[in-house]
Amino acid sequence: MTSSKSISQLTLADAATAIRERKFSSLDLTKACLAQIEKLNPKLNAFITVMSESALATATKADDEIRSGSYRGPLHGIPIGLKDLVDTAGVRTTCGSAVFADRVPDEDAEIVRRLKAAGAVLIGKQNMQEFAYGGTSAASHFGPVRNPWDLTRIPGGSSGGSAAAVATGMCFASIGTDTGGSVRQPASYCGVVGLKPTYGRISTRGVFPLSWSLDHVGPLCRTVTDTALMIEAIAGYDPLDPTTVDWPVEEYSKALRSIAKFRCAVVRSPYFEDLDLDVATAVENALLVIGNLGNEIREIELPFFPTTVQAPEVYAIHEQTLLRSPELFQRWVRERLVQAEKISTTEYVNGRRELERVRREVEAVFEHVDVLLTPTVSVPPIEVAEALEMSPPVAGEVWLRNTRPFNAYGLPTISIPCGLTSNGLPIGLQIAGPRFQEAKVLAFAYAFEQATEWHKLTPPIREGIQ
Amino acid sequence: MTSSKSISQLTLADAATAIRERKFSSLDLTKACLAQIEKLNPKLNAFITVMSESALATATKADDEIRSGSYRGPLHGIPIGLKDLVDTAGVRTTCGSAVFADRVPDEDAEIVRRLKAAGAVLIGKQNMQEFAYGGTSAASHFGPVRNPWDLTRIPGGSSGGSAAAVATGMCFASIGTDTGGSVRQPASYCGVVGLKPTYGRISTRGVFPLSWSLDHVGPLCRTVTDTALMIEAIAGYDPLDPTTVDWPVEEYSKALRSIAKFRCAVVRSPYFEDLDLDVATAVENALLVIGNLGNEIREIELPFFPTTVQAPEVYAIHEQTLLRSPELFQRWVRERLVQAEKISTTEYVNGRRELERVRREVEAVFEHVDVLLTPTVSVPPIEVAEALEMSPPVAGEVWLRNTRPFNAYGLPTISIPCGLTSNGLPIGLQIAGPRFQEAKVLAFAYAFEQATEWHKLTPPIREGIQ
Repeated sequence: MTSSKSISQLTLADAATAIRERKFSSLDLTKACLAQIEKLNPKLNAFITVMSESALATATKADDEIRSGSYRGPLHGIPIGLKDLVDTAGVRTTCGSAVFADRVPDEDAEIVRRLKAAGAVLIGKQNMQEFAYGGTSAASHFGPVRNPWDLTRIPGGSSGGSAAAVATGMCFASIGTDTGGSVRQPASYCGVVGLKPTYGRISTRGVFPLSWSLDHVGPLCRTVTDTALMIEAIAGYDPLDPTTVDWPVEEYSKALRSIAKFRCAVVRSPYFEDLDLDVATAVENALLVIGNLGNEIREIELPFFPTTVQAPEVYAIHEQTLLRSPELFQRWVRERLVQAEKISTTEYVNGRRELERVRREVEAVFEHVDVLLTPTVSVPPIEVAEALEMSPPVAGEVWLRNTRPFNAYGLPTISIPCGLTSNGLPIGLQIAGPRFQEAKVLAFAYAFEQATEWHKLTPPIREGIQ
Repeated sequence: MTSSKSISQLTLADAATAIRERKFSSLDLTKACLAQIEKLNPKLNAFITVMSESALATATKADDEIRSGSYRGPLHGIPIGLKDLVDTAGVRTTCGSAVFADRVPDEDAEIVRRLKAAGAVLIGKQNMQEFAYGGTSAASHFGPVRNPWDLTRIPGGSSGGSAAAVATGMCFASIGTDTGGSVRQPASYCGVVGLKPTYGRISTRGVFPLSWSLDHVGPLCRTVTDTALMIEAIAGYDPLDPTTVDWPVEEYSKALRSIAKFRCAVVRSPYFEDLDLDVATAVENALLVIGNLGNEIREIELPFFPTTVQAPEVYAIHEQTLLRSPELFQRWVRERLVQAEKISTTEYVNGRRELERVRREVEAVFEHVDVLLTPTVSVPPIEVAEALEMSPPVAGEVWLRNTRPFNAYGLPTISIPCGLTSNGLPIGLQIAGPRFQEAKVLAFAYAFEQATEWHKLTPPIREGIQ
């Protein structure tokens, strides 16, 4: 049980148990993750900065604490990765951009402070779509991230490195961010679990913004239980982040079996339209499983949501750099910023107001429904080469169509594995629930996970077969 | 006690007691208010629409209910006025504008629904600055409102008619709106009490917006007790208004004596700068009274607040009309809208984000302070003739300088009478408290009111001396 191979197969919950029972040390886990990174990162390009030295030191300290009987909880001694827009004091934080190639923050992001307080071992900073603006992770100053299931394809994005790392045992969980699907869509493409919590549930202070009205921090993990353990540690009110809400954090991991039957609703339009055939098959099969578990399934529609909020907020952040040094941006991102400039003040004002209205309006959907179900992504991942050549589609990236609305709604939304395409690429099921009811979303996802085997599949490259 | 003169001298609380004890009927009160309107409105121009017929019918019905033993509470049978941007089903609601000269809403605003449920008698729709955009009430399609203390001067605005009506016994309370001081500043200029509650405390649904991020509905009354009774009836969560917050409404009128000593802070900069000498004297005297009551007084500063939020939101609402029919607007308002168009999307995006930040940041001020104190307005009211001739000042109207920041902060803020100028015009003291702690603000205002006589002064015109 001490080979790096067996360790890298453990879930976060397994690893936590092993640490608590002293079957493995934090140093064992950390070395195993570093070995995976050493082996696979040259192929996947999932990490920009590997924090080997500080990770080993933190792991040693974690082991000392545990030996002296001071156990902090399930993240104690667990190697965790951070998307490289999460500020880490003294450690370069690039946002995947030449603009910040040498940027070293003075302070930790609030979520980093919480992870450190929980005893986590921060293993490194993960590659991403530049400034999180786009869903491929191909446009990065540090080169494109690759999908561990097929190295010719994108891992999704913008949290592509975070998803690829979790899928291949480079860490037990990652912190990503999700403004239009950037946690859920790469989770779907890499066959892991990705949660975008309720808007305001997790502090975004010290996380470089993409679009502040739509930005969410969320974990990528191997299982639903691991996801529950992660948000227990990082969720909660931050007086210095005006978007967070003072709402109690639940013991999500203990509530996973708290609900027996769910009232489910599928949202056919537009979420089931123009689906890839393999995606359609996998999701319809998932619905059969869900029905067979005794859950009720109906169909509903969701309200209109505004699409004029994100671009002006992104543009406002990058305007000065774009005017001064446009060459610093990746071509795709620069082109997208130029598109973003075109929205008028009045269009944004109206969109921003509409956003507040729809966030309130969508709550009514949950009077008779527990969870909403859709495919996470309507199409499989494209090839990296294609992503590198294309220009930003004016109508928005098709692989974010199904995730984007839930950033506007602000609802807790998760993607979990629910199938494979005929050529062996993962497919995700998207589940949304009522505001601040992460517990309900996780409980439903857990029930599905327990009834299926999809979360047990790992990319062949993980064990060196590819 | 049955002459209209004596009735119009009663406070709302007095009138409620008289009704409950059947010393006066609702019909007595309503007739007395209508008599005041008939006598004084030709001079003050405070009402656009007097609802004589429906008011008398409602009063008769209120009296029937009370006689049959069904008493709804302190607003039952009390004549109340509404600023003419509060929607009333079947009753013309003009916003003081030619644009809406013939607009008759189908539905009541949420606060009208609540007032009706409380048994209030709606006496009429009050004149105002066109679309609430400006602080003089001179720019109205229905002609300027006059200050009851000096008919040559402005009553302040935009809720000028609402303040003048309360000051002269045309109604026992008014509903106004406050986006930059539009309740507090006319309250100060007309010698009445005006409360802008916490952002999100009172529904704005069915109230025509000026700037949705800064808009507040608030009452104008003769005393602090009356103010407490009014907000008890109209405050509270509205699921259909995304700005309202689901926070308990307190029994404010029963908590007026709940606090004995207050930790006060005066905010010298900029609120005490460039003050009119009479204003400075009155407010410093007020501070002496407050100190003599045993309250602690210190000095503090408040955080920067953004000034690029209001104009783009106002412009977004009126853009279509301005482009199509600019001649429908009053000259002053049209010129102001043209100025408003100049703010860029990025400036607004940054301002809107800063607004959220400062609303959170300002809460820290109240760790060691109960209430903030400033003059409500730094200068006495100008003459109507001057207001009619001027153009909108680019730097903002000076008579809103002290009120405007509290719309950005979103804090509950009240203006109460605290003196007179040498030529007999009222002066107001502004008191702000922590978010959703209207009870604390009202308790402090009540203590000051009990210690002084200013709220007992009435404009000479009220009794026909002028």
